[in-house]
Amino acid sequence: MLQTPYYLIDKSKLLQNMERIATVREKSGAKALLALKCFATWSVFDFMRDYMDGTTSSSLNEVRLGHERFGKETHAYSVAYADYEIDEVVSHADKIIFNSIGQLQRFESQSAGITRGLRLNPGVSSSSFDLADPARPFSRLGEWDLKKVDPVMEMITGFMIHNNCENKDFALFDRMLGDIEQKFAPLLKKAEWVSLGGGIHFTGDDYPVDLFAERLKRFSGEYGVQVYLEPGEASITKSTTLETTVLDTLYNGKNLVVVDSSIEAHMLDLLIYRENAKVHPNQGPHRAMVCGKSCLAGDIFGEFDFPEEVKVGDRISFQDAAGYTMVKKNWFNGVKMPAIAIRELDGSLRTVREFDYTDYEQSLS
Amino acid sequence: MLQTPYYLIDKSKLLQNMERIATVREKSGAKALLALKCFATWSVFDFMRDYMDGTTSSSLNEVRLGHERFGKETHAYSVAYADYEIDEVVSHADKIIFNSIGQLQRFESQSAGITRGLRLNPGVSSSSFDLADPARPFSRLGEWDLKKVDPVMEMITGFMIHNNCENKDFALFDRMLGDIEQKFAPLLKKAEWVSLGGGIHFTGDDYPVDLFAERLKRFSGEYGVQVYLEPGEASITKSTTLETTVLDTLYNGKNLVVVDSSIEAHMLDLLIYRENAKVHPNQGPHRAMVCGKSCLAGDIFGEFDFPEEVKVGDRISFQDAAGYTMVKKNWFNGVKMPAIAIRELDGSLRTVREFDYTDYEQSLS
Repeated sequence: MLQTPYYLIDKSKLLQNMERIATVREKSGAKALLALKCFATWSVFDFMRDYMDGTTSSSLNEVRLGHERFGKETHAYSVAYADYEIDEVVSHADKIIFNSIGQLQRFESQSAGITRGLRLNPGVSSSSFDLADPARPFSRLGEWDLKKVDPVMEMITGFMIHNNCENKDFALFDRMLGDIEQKFAPLLKKAEWVSLGGGIHFTGDDYPVDLFAERLKRFSGEYGVQVYLEPGEASITKSTTLETTVLDTLYNGKNLVVVDSSIEAHMLDLLIYRENAKVHPNQGPHRAMVCGKSCLAGDIFGEFDFPEEVKVGDRISFQDAAGYTMVKKNWFNGVKMPAIAIRELDGSLRTVREFDYTDYEQSLS
Repeated sequence: MLQTPYYLIDKSKLLQNMERIATVREKSGAKALLALKCFATWSVFDFMRDYMDGTTSSSLNEVRLGHERFGKETHAYSVAYADYEIDEVVSHADKIIFNSIGQLQRFESQSAGITRGLRLNPGVSSSSFDLADPARPFSRLGEWDLKKVDPVMEMITGFMIHNNCENKDFALFDRMLGDIEQKFAPLLKKAEWVSLGGGIHFTGDDYPVDLFAERLKRFSGEYGVQVYLEPGEASITKSTTLETTVLDTLYNGKNLVVVDSSIEAHMLDLLIYRENAKVHPNQGPHRAMVCGKSCLAGDIFGEFDFPEEVKVGDRISFQDAAGYTMVKKNWFNGVKMPAIAIRELDGSLRTVREFDYTDYEQSLS
């Protein structure tokens, strides 16, 4: 049996998301690109490729990974590219989307051979976290002034607008798309394609997929544009668990349980956004606070209810551990790095990556 | 010239900390162990070794690194060890400090051949962050009940008490040590050694080193114990910068500057603790908000004053970038990983580690 901790990607669960994405593509005509910033575990790209149109990226490393490991259509975007990397970025991309007019102009000649676009910032978003809100005051993410964008239209053929963040509310998506249309209609009419970014939770169980697809199709028709979606979390939601083992139990006013993982090292967003992990079914008479094994006092996965008293050696699975986890894992405290394993459709388990002491040592120098 | 981004460790600055540590050791009789959880860049261990007594650790990976790369005295501590790793931990350690009586008893036989200790939690700390406060309510960090600890005294010879966090205030340290004495005197009298942990900023410019050393010596004499300090940040404070280059400038209500780095990827604590980076001298008429190049809206190093208007291609150095940075760096967004470079005492620069696409790709699978 594989030693914990490990991330376990379940292809049968991943398949549900893939099929929903395929449905939306079919009904709406939109193309769907995997957002590598959220999930870049390339061992399952062969599996995902049949259901998606390609990848989008936020750096040279990501665009190369998308191009080499996923293939199909490859979008390059970055808040800013460096002079020394632009040629290689262009060599991997079908389309490059600049974050600013400054970057577009700086790299005009290097990018002349591929399709170009610009990020627009509509100044509204669905984010409930200031930290993750692309429309926050003084945001550096995208251009917003039509008067400045209009003069560079000859250099670009489309736009990327990413202002949804974990948005499960179709009505809110619809309303914000209306805002975008109102604000940017003159630009949209000149565009050939528009990427609406990620953050739309359209693979969720109750999401009104038909309404969503219809809205995308209408938008596409209205402006004569190819619509792109860039699902990150929506592509891999609920597909993966972080498998851990209980190493110790303590009592200090509450029942405490220490597992062989750490939120800071292995599920960093729980720490950054001060959120709790998810444990299923989270029912039963035995409540315990589940903690990580790093030195951080606040390394806490959350408080959960268990059917039996939790003992050393028990396994705890944290749900929904695919998005923004493996791409951000780090060697804090030298905590053992989780392996990456895949549950195939036939139920068999395959370990695709294990990390050892040498990986830790070589992460430094 | 080395391509940014890179961490630059300046040995002449590191030397100042080392000399202060050596002074405290000499005057107090305390031993000083480098806390690898804060800083583990082993290329400078040869340099640090002459001024310190060894290392302390928080995992198997760290204790092995300390043993193999630093040598001298090696302390093993972890919030929890797994069954399969305890033998290897013991093989690398001179002393093992268990976080709980449960762990001590579980590994009694495996650890019988080396010096053993237990972490005590005095229930008071100097932390201003709940997140980092080892004495927070329901803390899992250490035992606090004398009645439970007393019966296991035959298995251990000392204690680790870590309740200082970025504590620059000697009076507060002194007062908290008094609390510890009051609370744990009966145990301290039975101990042969006591580690007072890290988090004491005794290498800071205005720290009253003589008073500190005297207090340690008095504590040592009072209980007949060898005192240990475990400086992390104090060992490397102000020794290192993160060197970046400006990739883009924008205006959106404020002057915005984008550099080729990211707080989330390269200086994670700025994000976790919502703090600003430090730029020197931070003076001049041109104010700008300096942002990272990741997709995160809140990837902001801070707002700083510059003598000239900041332009693309300018260099920005972030100060004090040694502690809890390199040990937590990660591949978020696939942002180029900073190299690690050392400025030798003669002023020459030596690059000790560069990271490339293969490192990124192999961080996943």
